[in-house]
Amino acid sequence: FPEMALPLWKNLLQTTKERILQQRRLSLYNGVHGYEEEWIKKKLQQFAGGSINLSKEDNGIGILTLNNPKLMNAFTGTMMVELQERITELEDWKDGKGLIVCGAGNTFCSGSDLNAVKEISNSQASINIHITDGMNMCMFMQNTLTRLMRLPLISVALVQGKAFGGGAELTTACDFRLMTPGSEIRFVHKHMGLVPGWGGAARLVRIVGSGAALQLLSGAARVDPEKALRLGFSEQTLSSSDETRALEEAQAWLSQYTEGPVSVIRAVKKVVTAGRELPLEDALRIEKDIFGTVWGGPANLQALVRRPKHK
Amino acid sequence: FPEMALPLWKNLLQTTKERILQQRRLSLYNGVHGYEEEWIKKKLQQFAGGSINLSKEDNGIGILTLNNPKLMNAFTGTMMVELQERITELEDWKDGKGLIVCGAGNTFCSGSDLNAVKEISNSQASINIHITDGMNMCMFMQNTLTRLMRLPLISVALVQGKAFGGGAELTTACDFRLMTPGSEIRFVHKHMGLVPGWGGAARLVRIVGSGAALQLLSGAARVDPEKALRLGFSEQTLSSSDETRALEEAQAWLSQYTEGPVSVIRAVKKVVTAGRELPLEDALRIEKDIFGTVWGGPANLQALVRRPKHK
Amino acid sequence: FPEMALPLWKNLLQTTKERILQQRRLSLYNGVHGYEEEWIKKKLQQFAGGSINLSKEDNGIGILTLNNPKLMNAFTGTMMVELQERITELEDWKDGKGLIVCGAGNTFCSGSDLNAVKEISNSQASINIHITDGMNMCMFMQNTLTRLMRLPLISVALVQGKAFGGGAELTTACDFRLMTPGSEIRFVHKHMGLVPGWGGAARLVRIVGSGAALQLLSGAARVDPEKALRLGFSEQTLSSSDETRALEEAQAWLSQYTEGPVSVIRAVKKVVTAGRELPLEDALRIEKDIFGTVWGGPANLQALVRRPKHK
Repeated sequence: FPEMALPLWKNLLQTTKERILQQRRLSLYNGVHGYEEEWIKKKLQQFAGGSINLSKEDNGIGILTLNNPKLMNAFTGTMMVELQERITELEDWKDGKGLIVCGAGNTFCSGSDLNAVKEISNSQASINIHITDGMNMCMFMQNTLTRLMRLPLISVALVQGKAFGGGAELTTACDFRLMTPGSEIRFVHKHMGLVPGWGGAARLVRIVGSGAALQLLSGAARVDPEKALRLGFSEQTLSSSDETRALEEAQAWLSQYTEGPVSVIRAVKKVVTAGRELPLEDALRIEKDIFGTVWGGPANLQALVRRPKHK
Repeated sequence: FPEMALPLWKNLLQTTKERILQQRRLSLYNGVHGYEEEWIKKKLQQFAGGSINLSKEDNGIGILTLNNPKLMNAFTGTMMVELQERITELEDWKDGKGLIVCGAGNTFCSGSDLNAVKEISNSQASINIHITDGMNMCMFMQNTLTRLMRLPLISVALVQGKAFGGGAELTTACDFRLMTPGSEIRFVHKHMGLVPGWGGAARLVRIVGSGAALQLLSGAARVDPEKALRLGFSEQTLSSSDETRALEEAQAWLSQYTEGPVSVIRAVKKVVTAGRELPLEDALRIEKDIFGTVWGGPANLQALVRRPKHK
Repeated sequence: FPEMALPLWKNLLQTTKERILQQRRLSLYNGVHGYEEEWIKKKLQQFAGGSINLSKEDNGIGILTLNNPKLMNAFTGTMMVELQERITELEDWKDGKGLIVCGAGNTFCSGSDLNAVKEISNSQASINIHITDGMNMCMFMQNTLTRLMRLPLISVALVQGKAFGGGAELTTACDFRLMTPGSEIRFVHKHMGLVPGWGGAARLVRIVGSGAALQLLSGAARVDPEKALRLGFSEQTLSSSDETRALEEAQAWLSQYTEGPVSVIRAVKKVVTAGRELPLEDALRIEKDIFGTVWGGPANLQALVRRPKHK
């Protein structure tokens, strides 16, 4: 009997490892958690507007643009569904090395479009149904943003203008944040009577520490570029707030880190993903597995031929 | 058989989640760990002196005062028992949003009162019994301080004068530390031939990182307000070291973060607690559950009525 | 049946705890992971050169020197085997409190000696065998460096000259890094078509955070003493780059933290090891166990006799 239980227990732990190694469509929630993907997608389709655009550049950097400028790029239902589709495309993009997430109209994202959310207040009778909607939307977005976070691409949120509520949460699913002068990030959830539900709190704790996260969430204060740098929440303040030039600056910043063979850059992102998500012993074992995917590979052999006998 | 083992395994993980979500009287140690609560409480009652006072203010901020100024607020046995009772009161306080932990007589806390501890050195014959005492006291205090740490209240240790040994450990069970000019925190355990046992080491590693924690514990060096700020161990140095004015300053600082609906502030503390204690996937799932407690709730509905169509 | 499954599950978690508490020859990999220690040791013995020297000083500080100056102290196969032997000696050194890891010839370490690695490129036919070699070498070094990291000694990497590739990874297995003026650490793996495989990525994430780790690994940039200090990767820049004086400075720095009873200093390192490797609840329970090893012990009793009634 112990011989049977051991592999079972190991299989359960194994799941997270496979999610990180394979990084494809393995989601946090499924039917077991009361999550009904097809049902919530149908619901979300009813709240249409805006789009999520993806451009895959030859240099291996993708540009993902939230496009709903009339509402400061707030997420409509169809935009949530499109974001999931774009992430699937990025998971399939074998030549990808980096990703920039930005907003149209020189601002980032103001969270959820509240037209859908508003309905709750119109009908107290139907509130139970709407709570189910809210929880399913929450699981839908957590699944998508967890897959974004684990893409084997080095990702940057380019924050222009405002990143509010769910928009602030979206920035935490990227590896880095770059801010333009005058921009701000703000976890406004408290003022909406809410807390983050798209995973923004759990990820923020890992980026800035639990003390700073508690202050940002409970204070709902404006985080300008200076404060973001001080907290280690942003990597750099760009010199321009012009939309085109800021994007060029972000691409130049990111290309320092994406330069090199595709297989190696993607492997680097994977070892860091394992390192930040898993207990040390598990991270070490995955590091060994990922090392095995590049050791003796083409880029490694080429480097050995090119280089003298010792580094 | 696998269908039976799976829920069993999940139930075990579930326990930590429930401790965080419910945050009531769920302790780390019980009989399984050789911990005998009633027995150690009886023992502690024999070492009397001082008190732990709690005042619950109308603004939702509690003031917990260690009161044994003759011994620099060192913990007697009865104070340990009273601390547990006050934490139970705070778990029951449904209107609470914040907590300030401070000491009487313008100093914080000098650890354990050594009268009890001294007995060990008087009788080598009875040392096995006293080791059992020590371990049970250690489990008693870890249970209490873990419950303090997980209270759904944003907590601040107001450090005036000296926080030594167990007093330094107590500060790490709070979310934040504010220090008055001239005050100091010092992990003096090494000079007592000891290491922390109230959970102070495990929590310190999470606050300042393992490198700084190793230096503070192995060096037993004085941490003044400047050094504490530099290490990220303290949030701010207050302007006054006067007892009354320092408390007012601490209340003003804390109220930035406790302003707002009770349900929302408590939910914020809970998502951060989950984020700092649990692996990422578990933290994300709890964040979703906590989101569900405020989504569509009174504060959320009121905000929706009040606000325009998009944030 | 649940009564049987519970201790089984607990035994599995228990393993990591025992590794930390006992810290002796408990390795990450064994036959279950396809790891064949005797076979890889025989292979490594074929690539001879250099040595690993250990000197155990009376003050409880060990000096471990990588000695292969012709190749900037690159690891040959025999040096890998010798490192394992020296770590075993250190595990057996009951009077040890600290450790300095440094390189001969005023430089640190340039990673692996590539003579062995080169063979891969000569024969495509034998590549499968060589991949097995690579993975076994990787597991061999991870086992050794994990044991180094968990030694009950406060450890310092004294970085003079260059710490490249595997040399940079080695620095992350120490508790602290001290750098001499003009020295540099560089994760050059990308330029070799590789990622870290000796555990350097998993440990780096824990030292500098996942964002900085991702930048250092994907950028392969030079980390000079100033940048290392800013990142929290180094503790201090020494004043001298002279080999003898730098070692004296490192010893003086370390002795601030190793001063005191052997049992207490070793216990401090153990509580911090538990704190950085384990989930909070497990770290708390180990802290209690380690507290039990010093409570009522000779150093504690002596302190009680010496000190007044309260700290």
